[in-house]
Amino acid sequence: MSKLSVRSFSISIDGYGAGPGQDLENPMGLGGMGLHQWVLGTRTFQAMHGDGATGGETGVDDDFAARGFQNVGAWIMGRNMFGPIRGAWPDHDWQGWWGENPPYHTPVFVLTHHPRPSFTMEGGTTFHFVTDGIHAALNRAREAAGGKDIRLGGGVSTVRQYLREGLIDELHLAIAPVLLGSGEHLLGGLDLAKLGYTCTQHVASPKATHVVLVKPPAG
Amino acid sequence: MSKLSVRSFSISIDGYGAGPGQDLENPMGLGGMGLHQWVLGTRTFQAMHGDGATGGETGVDDDFAARGFQNVGAWIMGRNMFGPIRGAWPDHDWQGWWGENPPYHTPVFVLTHHPRPSFTMEGGTTFHFVTDGIHAALNRAREAAGGKDIRLGGGVSTVRQYLREGLIDELHLAIAPVLLGSGEHLLGGLDLAKLGYTCTQHVASPKATHVVLVKPPAG
Repeated sequence: MSKLSVRSFSISIDGYGAGPGQDLENPMGLGGMGLHQWVLGTRTFQAMHGDGATGGETGVDDDFAARGFQNVGAWIMGRNMFGPIRGAWPDHDWQGWWGENPPYHTPVFVLTHHPRPSFTMEGGTTFHFVTDGIHAALNRAREAAGGKDIRLGGGVSTVRQYLREGLIDELHLAIAPVLLGSGEHLLGGLDLAKLGYTCTQHVASPKATHVVLVKPPAG
Repeated sequence: MSKLSVRSFSISIDGYGAGPGQDLENPMGLGGMGLHQWVLGTRTFQAMHGDGATGGETGVDDDFAARGFQNVGAWIMGRNMFGPIRGAWPDHDWQGWWGENPPYHTPVFVLTHHPRPSFTMEGGTTFHFVTDGIHAALNRAREAAGGKDIRLGGGVSTVRQYLREGLIDELHLAIAPVLLGSGEHLLGGLDLAKLGYTCTQHVASPKATHVVLVKPPAG
């Protein structure tokens, strides 16, 4: 069965997945970009967001970044990851942060309380808007994924909702060597041990410590 | 001026410094020993607690373990780190977990609400009991340290009290690749960024990620 996976999700030493004071200029919150330094220089990131040349570093960070895109048949994300608009959609002009050719190349299910028609971008990314909750989104994503895995993008509150329901099979977290002090805490108040997760991998680069948390399938 | 330092303090991926359900059989709480696996095999630990032979591993973990004992002129610890007895001392029989020759070899200031006379063990360790609070203990430790550093041992609640008052100059945390899920959280509700700490070192072994958090001296 296809897995629901969180991959390349960055948190600070003190556990925050985004800094305080998120707005258009600081979509990751104050200091939040410090969480993602490990990925920016990787060959995987450069190939997706850079000028298309074959630059960028290989190594542990790149291995994890690349693995994050392997065998993904569908994505799920919260509405705040899709864009900065809150409340009802004023129009359908906003089509995500990623330009004409978003880096997903699969169906993407966006959790929202406000319906909106699906639309397709270049490169095979189709955004669907799911208004009937996280279980419904997961069911639709699983069907769309055709046996491949489903990657849960974020943000923090979306991951927490799926964690709380025990629906995530695997998380790869990148612990960045920064302190945020406040913002959105990924694991606060959640008992991951009780939910059945264990750490199965732990490897560091100079820029981040990568940990993989896995919940064995029931039964 | 001598620094107040927390060293070799282990926490889980989810931020707990001790597991739930601490008692005499599980002084670190359930699963809590998993936090300390990185130190048990080190040459430093083996030399202190083993048979005195020169066994044990060298490397990153041992470097940090050894550094933890360098230039230490006094220790401070909470009462629960000194022993399992709660409330008034029934007698003075309990002399710590560490046998005749404790691994401190300096004055040790134990925070407690219940007065007790000082006493000296083999190897130069003298336990003093401080009933007038964390500032008084720090002042006495600083005086006793004679210009060397003061190491704050633990446990979690003691470290949190000193952190909250901005009194700790440096923390070395070892993030162990385990999840505890509940227990005593080291940083919950504390804003280390606001308190002025930054991460100045970040290095991992297969058994732990070591991070050093420093608060630059005021002025």
